[in-house]
Amino acid sequence: HRKIGQNAHLSIEILNSVHNLTELDGFCVKGNISSVYTDRVLVHVKDLTEEKVGQVVWLRSRVHTSRAKGKQCFLVLRQQQFNVQGLVAVGDHVSKQMVKFAANINKESIVDVQGIVQKVDQKIESCSQQDVELHIERIYVISTAEPRLPLQLDDAVRPETGEEEGRATVNQDTRLDNRVIDLRTTTSQAIFRLQSGVCQLFRETLINKGFTEIQTPKIISAASEGGANVFTVSYFKTSAYLAQSPQLYKQMCICADFDKVFCIGPVFRAEDSNTHRHLTEFVGLDIEMAFNYHYHEVVTQITDTLVQIFKGLRDRYQTEIQTVGKQFPSEPFKFLEPTLILEYPEGVAMLKEAGVEMGDEEDLSTPNEKLLGRLVKEKYDTDFYVLDKYPLAVRPFYTMPDPHTAKYSNSYDMFMRGEEILSGAQRIHDPQLLTDRALHLVTNGYKCVIISCLISSFQFLGLERVTMLYLGLHNVRQTSMFPRDPKRLTP
Amino acid sequence: HRKIGQNAHLSIEILNSVHNLTELDGFCVKGNISSVYTDRVLVHVKDLTEEKVGQVVWLRSRVHTSRAKGKQCFLVLRQQQFNVQGLVAVGDHVSKQMVKFAANINKESIVDVQGIVQKVDQKIESCSQQDVELHIERIYVISTAEPRLPLQLDDAVRPETGEEEGRATVNQDTRLDNRVIDLRTTTSQAIFRLQSGVCQLFRETLINKGFTEIQTPKIISAASEGGANVFTVSYFKTSAYLAQSPQLYKQMCICADFDKVFCIGPVFRAEDSNTHRHLTEFVGLDIEMAFNYHYHEVVTQITDTLVQIFKGLRDRYQTEIQTVGKQFPSEPFKFLEPTLILEYPEGVAMLKEAGVEMGDEEDLSTPNEKLLGRLVKEKYDTDFYVLDKYPLAVRPFYTMPDPHTAKYSNSYDMFMRGEEILSGAQRIHDPQLLTDRALHLVTNGYKCVIISCLISSFQFLGLERVTMLYLGLHNVRQTSMFPRDPKRLTP
Repeated sequence: HRKIGQNAHLSIEILNSVHNLTELDGFCVKGNISSVYTDRVLVHVKDLTEEKVGQVVWLRSRVHTSRAKGKQCFLVLRQQQFNVQGLVAVGDHVSKQMVKFAANINKESIVDVQGIVQKVDQKIESCSQQDVELHIERIYVISTAEPRLPLQLDDAVRPETGEEEGRATVNQDTRLDNRVIDLRTTTSQAIFRLQSGVCQLFRETLINKGFTEIQTPKIISAASEGGANVFTVSYFKTSAYLAQSPQLYKQMCICADFDKVFCIGPVFRAEDSNTHRHLTEFVGLDIEMAFNYHYHEVVTQITDTLVQIFKGLRDRYQTEIQTVGKQFPSEPFKFLEPTLILEYPEGVAMLKEAGVEMGDEEDLSTPNEKLLGRLVKEKYDTDFYVLDKYPLAVRPFYTMPDPHTAKYSNSYDMFMRGEEILSGAQRIHDPQLLTDRALHLVTNGYKCVIISCLISSFQFLGLERVTMLYLGLHNVRQTSMFPRDPKRLTP
Repeated sequence: HRKIGQNAHLSIEILNSVHNLTELDGFCVKGNISSVYTDRVLVHVKDLTEEKVGQVVWLRSRVHTSRAKGKQCFLVLRQQQFNVQGLVAVGDHVSKQMVKFAANINKESIVDVQGIVQKVDQKIESCSQQDVELHIERIYVISTAEPRLPLQLDDAVRPETGEEEGRATVNQDTRLDNRVIDLRTTTSQAIFRLQSGVCQLFRETLINKGFTEIQTPKIISAASEGGANVFTVSYFKTSAYLAQSPQLYKQMCICADFDKVFCIGPVFRAEDSNTHRHLTEFVGLDIEMAFNYHYHEVVTQITDTLVQIFKGLRDRYQTEIQTVGKQFPSEPFKFLEPTLILEYPEGVAMLKEAGVEMGDEEDLSTPNEKLLGRLVKEKYDTDFYVLDKYPLAVRPFYTMPDPHTAKYSNSYDMFMRGEEILSGAQRIHDPQLLTDRALHLVTNGYKCVIISCLISSFQFLGLERVTMLYLGLHNVRQTSMFPRDPKRLTP
């Protein structure tokens, strides 16, 4: 901790100004300085249901909107994905001044309110809690928001199509420039809570399967993927690079007998692309494992992990999926158990039948991947499948050839809604070849003793991408809290 | 995936050489090309106990050592933290050539063996499986290791004190230069499995408490802690920096209504320090939360999270703790429930009683922190405690003063075995002050709209440090798989 003693007087002034506050008529602006503990229990907005009717509750929430109307003031009180209507009306507990006070609270301020939960005659369509409202008797402003907001939360959650088409929305840059406000929208709250779930489900499944979580360094001595698209770091008197993937380190862990490892962490790509799916900093979900006899042991582990994620999201995050769907409608994500594994020639045949002209050993273009995704969805009713046995010629040199048909290989891609999410392969485990390859990767004086193991690796599942495709969104910036691209380094 | 077609012929050659292998007499060097599935079940070394006596099993493991003796060859077969003795002896199933073949397998090669589990008369002290050995009938080399290893695994796990004092050990640099071998030792296997557990327990506890996991960017536009000790990155036509902490982003998430967040990720410090506890790249375990009335709500959440980690390690990782203890003996880690919270004046009094001369509002030096740790251990029998109410003068300017005694503050440090592991405080939540501060942090054109919330933050728990102190180790390089310091960027 630093010593910035000269600034301590600032704190004291604030302390004093807080102490000078007086409580008046059940409403005031109030500070909080941890001077007392209290037994007061705060309810959550999402728990304000018919069962609570008649109860007096305390609630801390944001003022989403306020609307005065004669002797009444309606407030919408928001907490994360949930909101409830509050009513301040002149009566036994409420004065005219208090209604005026409530009406003048800036939107997005944080308030503590005490009120009685009341049933409403007609469902309140604009709130998540549609059956009750809160008759407020006391209100305290805990924190006042600025009077003018850089964007309106209601605009920020408006669907771009449908009946509200043409009304104000908020563009991506305005959102990102004001990310703290934008992240408060019900849609953002839902996206990032679901994304937290993706990570948790990924790890939960792998830990249950006996995997060990590892941490790999991000600052490395040599560019990991041959030098292109790598960020350079000034490292004391020398230069270093930002890791483009944890590939080499995962592999070293396998050769160091960790057997099955995974990691979740940032990966960096200095690619000057400004598209809906490129970022310069991603979060990678990575697995690496040794297998015993057949690389399909690995394919099964990965597809099973993804299926566990899809099931977990469906079962535990339905509220979040529904919330995002209000602004961005999409078909629910479909998957099969066991996962569909299509062989490459079969995929090519389906494309040819649909009129695509292509060679048997030709790679798939992005439009053809999308088309194949649609064809697979029609035929098998799944948004998730594996395309196995890619032509050897289109895969990296360390890919193991297929033992039965040498023009194909023991390698595969996996797709969600027609977009590739990961690419995997059995690696050749000849020590000499692997060591040569490793030496190319680690040139800076370190002799990498990778002694041959049976490795199947995949590279890599982008967290933002998986979340985007699962929810049927269209820009990876929607699923990165603080996205980085060639033009954006802030917030 | 890249197209490196010209290298495909290499793969084919290997494929052929693998196909040309012939199985001879139940032993050979063998490849693996995913050509067939097999029903063969491989046992784990750790499951080779008396219950398996008489059973024929298949095992895949490393040859840890081999020692020929007339018509017999003793092998120690190792799998991660576990090993078992194997015996190849001339008899019905085993020829002389096979004994010779077994004796000539290079250490660290991977073998598949078939054998019968037999009870032994005398415990095998040198193996983790002390009650049985494996009488081997078939042996295949899956992967041959180099004949000369850069370090001997037995040297690498030898305690530096005690009865083996003076015998060969391996120094830290040799270990790190050959990390793939060093990570195979039972000690390394145990350390990093336990470390994986620390992360899992941290998240498990916080997810259960309703926290959301967030991902924060590592490339940032302005130095986050005032510019000192920050790494610079070339970012297209401009410069960027590596984040020294997720502090600002965690705080933005709280202001964006995420309420309780945590993250695990790399943090970077360009500090030219070469000590046992400095690295340039750490893994930070970070929490941030809003609280309702009192910052002790947060202290309780953090101490409870740490206690859950300590309990989980004790209950689930006893094998790992024992394994590390064989090489690095230390007292088992002690903690109390609830956690001891000592107020600063009480700590100062204890130090003064022990003969230390210091002022009441003076900060603790590192030696005094260590001493206080010993005094607390003696008096309260705990290796973990909180020191609360630091003098205001020694804390950052945004620290909230104590409402009762203004010379102290609502801030605290937490200690494990007398070393600070985190530093926390209630932050002043006056919007103007916070915004000014935030603007200092984010200077690059982005107006950070941090609207006041009740925040208590701590900064930060180093994963390597927590693991080191829990296990009573003495160098943070032992608990970082691939450590980075001013002189080390590899492996």
